[in-house]
Amino acid sequence: MIELANELAEAAGAAIRPLFRTSLAVAEKEDKTPVTLADRAAEKAMAALIAERFPGHGIIGEELGQSRCEAELVWVLDPIDGTKSFISGIPLFGTLIALCRSGRPLLGVIDQPISRERWVGAKGRRSTLQGRPVSCRACEGLSSATVFATTPEMFSGNDAEAFARVAGAAKLVRFGADCYAYGMLAAGFIDLVIESSLKPYDFCAMVPVVEGAGGIATDWQGKPLTLASDGRVLVAGDRRAHRAALALLKG
Amino acid sequence: MIELANELAEAAGAAIRPLFRTSLAVAEKEDKTPVTLADRAAEKAMAALIAERFPGHGIIGEELGQSRCEAELVWVLDPIDGTKSFISGIPLFGTLIALCRSGRPLLGVIDQPISRERWVGAKGRRSTLQGRPVSCRACEGLSSATVFATTPEMFSGNDAEAFARVAGAAKLVRFGADCYAYGMLAAGFIDLVIESSLKPYDFCAMVPVVEGAGGIATDWQGKPLTLASDGRVLVAGDRRAHRAALALLKG
Repeated sequence: MIELANELAEAAGAAIRPLFRTSLAVAEKEDKTPVTLADRAAEKAMAALIAERFPGHGIIGEELGQSRCEAELVWVLDPIDGTKSFISGIPLFGTLIALCRSGRPLLGVIDQPISRERWVGAKGRRSTLQGRPVSCRACEGLSSATVFATTPEMFSGNDAEAFARVAGAAKLVRFGADCYAYGMLAAGFIDLVIESSLKPYDFCAMVPVVEGAGGIATDWQGKPLTLASDGRVLVAGDRRAHRAALALLKG
Repeated sequence: MIELANELAEAAGAAIRPLFRTSLAVAEKEDKTPVTLADRAAEKAMAALIAERFPGHGIIGEELGQSRCEAELVWVLDPIDGTKSFISGIPLFGTLIALCRSGRPLLGVIDQPISRERWVGAKGRRSTLQGRPVSCRACEGLSSATVFATTPEMFSGNDAEAFARVAGAAKLVRFGADCYAYGMLAAGFIDLVIESSLKPYDFCAMVPVVEGAGGIATDWQGKPLTLASDGRVLVAGDRRAHRAALALLKG
């Protein structure tokens, strides 16, 4: 399965790279998210490989929707997480590939096709970046924590207040890194990623990557992330920082 | 001078690359900005090259301060613009190199030492990325504009309200790209960069890069940027977007 996940990342990257920083027609979905031709081509390429090797597996894709999602094993695909970065020419977007069993992420790949950096995580194994093991760093509490989120605009109402409580207690807050932030957390360079309004294809892949690097990935209630989670994500490299952030998110 | 600017970028990159994503002691300056050993080593290397070739030129550096800044020609150096990105492992920081005559930027280099992308701009010449000419893209007004700023935290009081007026009218707002955003504007992938609280070494280098790609770089009053500017920066690829943003910034 890890081998197939790597092949999916290769196929997605091959579809995406020729279209990065080119002028292309940007279609707009109903929800106004920018979507590129690259996004669709990459997901089609991945779905075709899965259907060929494991026709019984389910697929939940960001672009092409769901098929056989009642299967025990379901691939959860986001060909370009960070389409806004992609269309702005910023190489922090990534291809996210997860395999879930009964709704729980078992295997995850975060692939940046321009810098060709790839994180791979799988239950019971040490996560890797470029094939080398990675580890989250220690962080005793929020006063020494670097916190990332994709954009402050993802938090509305009570979520915005909850995020502001954690941000106010943190050492450093930064925006704009998309899925790359989870990779940097797994590699020990940042301490917390806090997001909301995410879909399963935005977060499933990073769960095994973060957990296999010694970190913890939950929702804002501290519960494990599954396909049924509500899209609020709290990821930490150190359980102490996770506990402190969780308390402030709950208010 | 362009040749020397390229050599400075090479020297800075050689000092910076070995220290990226390594565990190193992060000193804290009085203002609590994270500063790395890489920052200091890169500026020392650049200052030594300038002193060797043009001992009469002035230097204003982010790390090591000023020397001979009454000279007609003054180099303005920021070895690592985006130290917060650097310490978070995010390759969007850059080395900024400017040459000013009587306070006005004449020549600028934006160098990303990890992806090895380099923008070069000089008065009267077409700006380049990797040696190939670049151009800003057309943008009729704010409703079609992608706007970048390093972080919402850089705007306080009236500046925050002014930025919010432009952000509210824009198509897309993104944070976190540091100097890389100016490069993407010069390459035609985004439309506006609006920042405040900048120092001359944060903005001088991008002025010739942006202007040589057909864009416009001013303060929030619409005046040209100089060493004496107040740190508020409004950069656009198209004069129509610049005019619309300027009107909203002024309130």
